Amino acid sequence: MRAEIVATGDEIRTGALVDSNSAHIADQLEQAGIEVTRHHAVGDDLPVLVALLHEIGARAEVAVVTGGLGPTEDDLSAAAAARALGVGLVLDQQALEEIEAYFTRRGRPMTASNRKQAMFPEGARRLPNPIGTAPGFRVVIGGCAFYFLPGVPHEMRRMLQEQVLPDLHTMQGAVRDFRLTRVISTFGLPESVVGEKVAAIHQYFPDIKLGLRAKFPEIQVKLYLNTPDEAQGGRMLDGAARWVSEALGINVFSLREGTMAEEVGALLRQQNATLALAESCTGGLIANWLTNIAGSSDYFLFGAVTYANPSKIQVLGVEPETLEQYGAVHETTAQSMARGARRIAGATYGLATSGIAGPGGGTAEKPVGTLCIGLDGPMGTRSRTVTLSFGQRLMNKRLFAMIALDLLRRALLEQPDQP
Amino acid sequence: MRAEIVATGDEIRTGALVDSNSAHIADQLEQAGIEVTRHHAVGDDLPVLVALLHEIGARAEVAVVTGGLGPTEDDLSAAAAARALGVGLVLDQQALEEIEAYFTRRGRPMTASNRKQAMFPEGARRLPNPIGTAPGFRVVIGGCAFYFLPGVPHEMRRMLQEQVLPDLHTMQGAVRDFRLTRVISTFGLPESVVGEKVAAIHQYFPDIKLGLRAKFPEIQVKLYLNTPDEAQGGRMLDGAARWVSEALGINVFSLREGTMAEEVGALLRQQNATLALAESCTGGLIANWLTNIAGSSDYFLFGAVTYANPSKIQVLGVEPETLEQYGAVHETTAQSMARGARRIAGATYGLATSGIAGPGGGTAEKPVGTLCIGLDGPMGTRSRTVTLSFGQRLMNKRLFAMIALDLLRRALLEQPDQP
Repeated sequence: MRAEIVATGDEIRTGALVDSNSAHIADQLEQAGIEVTRHHAVGDDLPVLVALLHEIGARAEVAVVTGGLGPTEDDLSAAAAARALGVGLVLDQQALEEIEAYFTRRGRPMTASNRKQAMFPEGARRLPNPIGTAPGFRVVIGGCAFYFLPGVPHEMRRMLQEQVLPDLHTMQGAVRDFRLTRVISTFGLPESVVGEKVAAIHQYFPDIKLGLRAKFPEIQVKLYLNTPDEAQGGRMLDGAARWVSEALGINVFSLREGTMAEEVGALLRQQNATLALAESCTGGLIANWLTNIAGSSDYFLFGAVTYANPSKIQVLGVEPETLEQYGAVHETTAQSMARGARRIAGATYGLATSGIAGPGGGTAEKPVGTLCIGLDGPMGTRSRTVTLSFGQRLMNKRLFAMIALDLLRRALLEQPDQP
Repeated sequence: MRAEIVATGDEIRTGALVDSNSAHIADQLEQAGIEVTRHHAVGDDLPVLVALLHEIGARAEVAVVTGGLGPTEDDLSAAAAARALGVGLVLDQQALEEIEAYFTRRGRPMTASNRKQAMFPEGARRLPNPIGTAPGFRVVIGGCAFYFLPGVPHEMRRMLQEQVLPDLHTMQGAVRDFRLTRVISTFGLPESVVGEKVAAIHQYFPDIKLGLRAKFPEIQVKLYLNTPDEAQGGRMLDGAARWVSEALGINVFSLREGTMAEEVGALLRQQNATLALAESCTGGLIANWLTNIAGSSDYFLFGAVTYANPSKIQVLGVEPETLEQYGAVHETTAQSMARGARRIAGATYGLATSGIAGPGGGTAEKPVGTLCIGLDGPMGTRSRTVTLSFGQRLMNKRLFAMIALDLLRRALLEQPDQP
């Protein structure tokens, strides 16, 4: 089956709102083995909507339309579907009762305009909305089954899951195809090099489609397979993912779409190790990433954001002479910061960043993009300097934080007690 | 002029990636007085792309297409445009040199596949990419000027701004209509209350359209005006923005789409004041927000992420008795943390957060969503406890950080030396 997706509304048409609904719907349909061929977005414009419904009705077997089910006169989805079908709008008594019940539960009065939300094209099948005022509906235009859903993401998602997908599975019958995917997350190699290293996969796994995705600052390798046999296809994909992992080696940091922080956190947990941070140029970003993970307090003990030099001295115990002799952005200083953070927290590892995120603060010797990392742990103290050529502060911060966490990840993987 | 927008790529078609480019382009075109009528998204499929280019060429005057300019064989934009025009692809020598220079600057070898990125449809005008490897190009298909831009958002945005929009202004000539907007950012009132407080704006400014947008955790009030007179329209919008500001009072934190951290940073700078942070439940998020701002080292001196209690004691000087008696999540503890951070850094203000972001760690007395804020400064020590009902850790962290910064903002606005 081929599907198209439509987002409606002037907010989306004019760019006031980013349409995240269509990606979710596409992902769910593709996973169900339905090929999504096109997405559309149009405004609250009746003739445009009617023309688009006709166009899709002549081309696709399934369409999911979001938005335009609200109580205002800008909400035109039911009117457009009725016009496209050449029928009138009729009041659905049960829908009206459900809308009334919704308002009663919330102790709010139902306005006259909400009555409009119970009007559907003649012959439409109502799709109940268990968590909002706007029910959806299903009609067939041309050769295509159209599902009209609300634009509110959590309402749309629930109705898609509970009503649309089961309906489509019934329509698919026995000839269902599964779309399976695997994602291999890498860091440290440019996209072109990743592409070259995995190019030969077609020789070994000819049925599997490969895509590269730059999800700054990661490069993801995605493997796709359409198959009627979910179990066998899954085994084939697992084999292909292992092949890709071996081709890319240490640069692979996750096989489950985990973030670098999640994978570093998992390694720390496995090893019963703990971490303290001393962040200068990354300004709390590494701490923020780690504390986004539920349960990270088990391994993340303490972070210092030492933006000013006095706090490097006073909190982390960096010697004033070190700062005088080498400056804040130097491997010796970063090492001292890492040792200080580790000591204060009594952590297994101390990780420190000092650098110049820009746009100001660069010099000829230490330009914007310079990063010094210090890492202190059971294996001793290490450090590294890298210089990036991005001009943007936020990109530099992200990349600095990734490089620092990756240095720790590689050190953790060297541990002899690792599986 | 009527414009359509196309996002290309299997990642977008299948929903692996949310297309945020199209909203940005639509917003920029609409602001330039160009009506965006439709958005499309299609996969890496040559016949589908060619058919869509013909379709749009027969309907619109302007089209912006993103994606498909990379080095891989999935990148089909130039080939599709050439096919739609019935011409061949030719090597652009200058583009090749620029791509080579890009790799040379980064000290990386250029691969053979990157050469493909210098191939354009015969007769196309190259659009240089100052910050990436993929140049764009402009062709006219049917009656429509097509701008092909990279899918990487920051590259696309810069090329749109510097090359496409000036080109379109020239095409528009004298008959240009401006779409002007103002954004008033608020925090602390529910969307429905914001809506009620500004509902009367239509009586005073009937030409101005108002929209509310929940940009979690902010509520933005957006004002729109279409006008041929940019200067006069701008003055009218400024008046309306002042009216909205007065209606919403202290809950307005920015009139320039600034973030809460940017506005707090600006207030600190104005008052020659400095800040130190002690973050527990916000885990470095406030520090990260502040250090995203270029020049924030002028007022942000130090942050401690004291996830574990020992670091609260050792670094911030919180009394062990305080932690024993009240626990980590308590106003007394938060006050002590704020005083400690302020003292260590010698800052004007110390701001501290302690709370339960979830999903674990809640108790009947202190459920997930409990936040204690401490603020220490020239006005003495303050604290506040709030309890939120969100279950999600990341949403809680964001909201916690906003509430803490907002407490500081309100304190800064009370300063008698304020204008």
